[in-house]
Amino acid sequence: MKLKFTKMHGAGNDFIVLNGYRQAIELSPEQFRFIADRRFGIGADQILLVEKSEKPDIDFRYRIFNADGGEVEQCGNGARAFARFVTDFKLTDRNPIRVETKAGIIELKVEDDGDVTVNMGKPEFALAKIPFDARGLDGRNVGDDTLWPLSIKTGKNTHEIEVSVVSMGNPHAVQVVKNVDTAPVAEEGPSIENHERFPNRVNAGFMEIENRHTIRLRVFERGAGETLACGTGACAAVVSGIRRDLLDSPVTVKARGGTLKIAWNGEGNDVMMTGPATIVFHGEIDL
Amino acid sequence: MKLKFTKMHGAGNDFIVLNGYRQAIELSPEQFRFIADRRFGIGADQILLVEKSEKPDIDFRYRIFNADGGEVEQCGNGARAFARFVTDFKLTDRNPIRVETKAGIIELKVEDDGDVTVNMGKPEFALAKIPFDARGLDGRNVGDDTLWPLSIKTGKNTHEIEVSVVSMGNPHAVQVVKNVDTAPVAEEGPSIENHERFPNRVNAGFMEIENRHTIRLRVFERGAGETLACGTGACAAVVSGIRRDLLDSPVTVKARGGTLKIAWNGEGNDVMMTGPATIVFHGEIDL
Repeated sequence: MKLKFTKMHGAGNDFIVLNGYRQAIELSPEQFRFIADRRFGIGADQILLVEKSEKPDIDFRYRIFNADGGEVEQCGNGARAFARFVTDFKLTDRNPIRVETKAGIIELKVEDDGDVTVNMGKPEFALAKIPFDARGLDGRNVGDDTLWPLSIKTGKNTHEIEVSVVSMGNPHAVQVVKNVDTAPVAEEGPSIENHERFPNRVNAGFMEIENRHTIRLRVFERGAGETLACGTGACAAVVSGIRRDLLDSPVTVKARGGTLKIAWNGEGNDVMMTGPATIVFHGEIDL
Repeated sequence: MKLKFTKMHGAGNDFIVLNGYRQAIELSPEQFRFIADRRFGIGADQILLVEKSEKPDIDFRYRIFNADGGEVEQCGNGARAFARFVTDFKLTDRNPIRVETKAGIIELKVEDDGDVTVNMGKPEFALAKIPFDARGLDGRNVGDDTLWPLSIKTGKNTHEIEVSVVSMGNPHAVQVVKNVDTAPVAEEGPSIENHERFPNRVNAGFMEIENRHTIRLRVFERGAGETLACGTGACAAVVSGIRRDLLDSPVTVKARGGTLKIAWNGEGNDVMMTGPATIVFHGEIDL
């Protein structure tokens, strides 16, 4: 079977995009794993499958598969790649685009400069819903946020850090650091990710405040290690920075893979993420 | 500029192959780095540029560029990919194919099963030419080979290993291990690679003997760390095994990325390497 594909990335998070809009594409987990392999296949973090929606008033459906062949719920970088793909391939002239995902209906807006804005939903602060186990811990209130002390083991040593906790559909622990380049992401990351107070593990964010509208960010992602850009991590960092009164919306987030812009008008509002999505090349593979 | 390319691999060593046979292709080091990048570009270990030779009786010239944009001399896996490429694209119906490389003229034979045989040249045993500094060391003769003791530091500990040394155009230190899966490749590799007795550093091979015609091999490559399959490393291991009277030619070499077959008829003869080369996909990128 000959399969046409497009390789894209959003701030360094890369995707193989398959057009299943005009004809159905069914791949086995083995085939997903093969095409995601960076040496023996095409290579990507994830595979994005664009399909027709069966719901009225919804233009598309898309599904995201990890490199291991498993289907995942949501990905802000993938949503932007999807919107650029259907716009560039002229599969729609609507804007915003309404699309069905495994996590529900989302709306995507292609901006004049080609960047895409994604509604990332409302942040969740209820500790039980993050989930974060604060029993016996003394939190420290700063602005509208609460900072929690965490004991972190690196090697044989134990030290304490202070984190904001928030869920953007997935759990995040964000700390402010002086210099993100020298922050101990590789050393602390695994210890935060697997900290016993996060029953579902957690994404660890390291944020350097440049000014009230700009941060630099590195994220140690749950199950993946440090990545070039984490969309939900950028949202979580900005939300916690706004609540701590360190930042004002909108905030430019400089990650290693690219720059995102995050806007949030405070509790009760959705977080809006704007960022790039780039088509790298088109190809055809024989499966 | 739109650039057509083919993605290939030879036993897991992967290449972007560019057809500069019909029209000249000139890329800057920045462009090489970009297309070799696995997230922002196409992604590969190396880029292989196929060109016309200006010499009479020579069919092609090919050049190999590393992911950092620098041009390199030779690569057995790349030579096989080249031969498959010009055969599959019907750029020649000659077989064997004579080709000009930076390291000189080489001859490649496409076998009936599609595997390609490459003449890898003569092994070099003269210690000064490897180069290996044996001053004050007691070598132990085994068969026609000499085993050299090397002090290896891993962490705070020092222990001694015994290696064969040989050059296949690049220096190799090969040791026999009981089980290649549990061999301390990551631990010992850097210490062998940078051992003071190898002034140009060295590739570290770990070979498990299955029988007189089969080995399993892992190689910690100079400047690259452990790789999936190292062509010259396979040649070096088999040559040292034959000289130690552990192996008989031809020898099947099972590496993590695939299987190679190495034939060598003893001192004074060239080493012949046969192995696969696979076309993965075709693509077009806008540079």
